[in-house]
Amino acid sequence: MELLKERIRRDGRVYPGGVLKVDSFLNHQMDVKLFGEIGREFQRRFARCDVNRILTIEASGIGIACITAQFFDCPVVFAKKSRTRNISPDVYCARVESFTHGNVSDVLVSREFLGPRDRVLLIDDFLANGAALRGLASLVSQAGAELVGAGVVIEKAFQPGGDALRAQGMRIEALARVKSMSEAGGIEFAD
Amino acid sequence: MELLKERIRRDGRVYPGGVLKVDSFLNHQMDVKLFGEIGREFQRRFARCDVNRILTIEASGIGIACITAQFFDCPVVFAKKSRTRNISPDVYCARVESFTHGNVSDVLVSREFLGPRDRVLLIDDFLANGAALRGLASLVSQAGAELVGAGVVIEKAFQPGGDALRAQGMRIEALARVKSMSEAGGIEFAD
Repeated sequence: MELLKERIRRDGRVYPGGVLKVDSFLNHQMDVKLFGEIGREFQRRFARCDVNRILTIEASGIGIACITAQFFDCPVVFAKKSRTRNISPDVYCARVESFTHGNVSDVLVSREFLGPRDRVLLIDDFLANGAALRGLASLVSQAGAELVGAGVVIEKAFQPGGDALRAQGMRIEALARVKSMSEAGGIEFAD
Repeated sequence: MELLKERIRRDGRVYPGGVLKVDSFLNHQMDVKLFGEIGREFQRRFARCDVNRILTIEASGIGIACITAQFFDCPVVFAKKSRTRNISPDVYCARVESFTHGNVSDVLVSREFLGPRDRVLLIDDFLANGAALRGLASLVSQAGAELVGAGVVIEKAFQPGGDALRAQGMRIEALARVKSMSEAGGIEFAD
């Protein structure tokens, strides 16, 4: 998605340790006009998949998921993070290890809001090690729902998550795939 | 907002301790069509206020804020919660005590994304004790920005937050003001 790549080139900033900061338009300040273009593109890529539910994870996936859902005309469910192990029988639960924050949390979805009739599209802002998508996919599987695929805004293609999940059969559409980046400036895209 | 009140009457559930669960449409599963109506109504109420920035707090305010921002044609900034005291010079920071979760956290906004030229509308899903709005208003004040007001979807009018903040001069527009509610069923609205 050329518009997005241009925006990343212009406003993204690279920090030590493979950190790409895009918080001026994606995950702190949010450019909802850009989100509209992102949602439209996800809809184009997952058209005719009969998506009837979008699943994301708090917090930074929520805005993108909500605006994308307008194009699919379906509800969004966001998985909640919990630091404490939740063994309530009312929820589906998966462990997610965050490399960014260096912690482990449970992600929870109420059983009411995900079930066997659902055709689920996962939406998230970033794909790096794939921990979040793996956790969300586990929730979908626990619910007996159908996983249609995952739409991510930015994939760090130099980290192993995307390749590993694709090898396991997950369809992933990344709107910008970063192949390499350096603090000297210069973000190279994979396609 | 009659459509919202009907939805709360139909799908809201009251639990002991003054808990109103609306997680089937507002803050776990999210009905983005309803969010569209909510956004349109906030825009109507704050029209001609020259809002150029919407500020919300993670996580459940983000979806409503993003869809509302489409009507104002402005960006959203969401304040991030942090359990650890952040004294970075790059952020505005306020303490927020959560009565629901029984904890205290800092809420942070990067200085880059809030400044003296901003006319800010606060958006949140619930107003009860007013802790979140008070924290967000503090961030706006630290930034030297202008606080236009706050739009909340549901106000628990039997809790003190709304009255206290209005007495301090904050303009608050609540789309549904719950006057009383009981587990026996029966949610009464203030207007």
